Amino acid sequence: MARVVVDVMLKPEILDPQGQAVQRALPRLGFDGISDVRQGKRFELEVDGPVDEAALARIHELAESFLANTVIEDFTVKVEEVAEAAK
Amino acid sequence: MARVVVDVMLKPEILDPQGQAVQRALPRLGFDGISDVRQGKRFELEVDGPVDEAALARIHELAESFLANTVIEDFTVKVEEVAEAAK
Repeated sequence: MARVVVDVMLKPEILDPQGQAVQRALPRLGFDGISDVRQGKRFELEVDGPVDEAALARIHELAESFLANTVIEDFTVKVEEVAEAAK
Repeated sequence: MARVVVDVMLKPEILDPQGQAVQRALPRLGFDGISDVRQGKRFELEVDGPVDEAALARIHELAESFLANTVIEDFTVKVEEVAEAAK
């Protein structure tokens, strides 16, 4: 079993009010030196079986069609190794 | 300028209804072999100046006190290198 992470972020040209709200609050809370904040989503998928090219292609399709709105969002798919204590 | 990424996920023992909804929808949409889905938040912070230990410590504090609810959420802080074309 392996973990695949799909990160979904608003495209750079799309306004991100959530991120802006965080960024504007930071100086008030005593944190300076952060010029921009973008907020997005992170999905951790536990995949049964091997994460081969076919599996990754399916997850890419899944992310594109279902997890991200590709009109306004970009996504990345990454494989994260998982300690396989049970094997 | 560098980018620091803060990932905030619900702790493993906390129920994640958003992730469960995604996981349950997948077979219906034709995607099998995903045994679990967890959904969390990803913050991308653009940091002015060098990301040294002091800056990372401050971002860690920021994440702990402001971006994550540490009663129910875990977070990780990662530095992502940024192509510095302007330098």
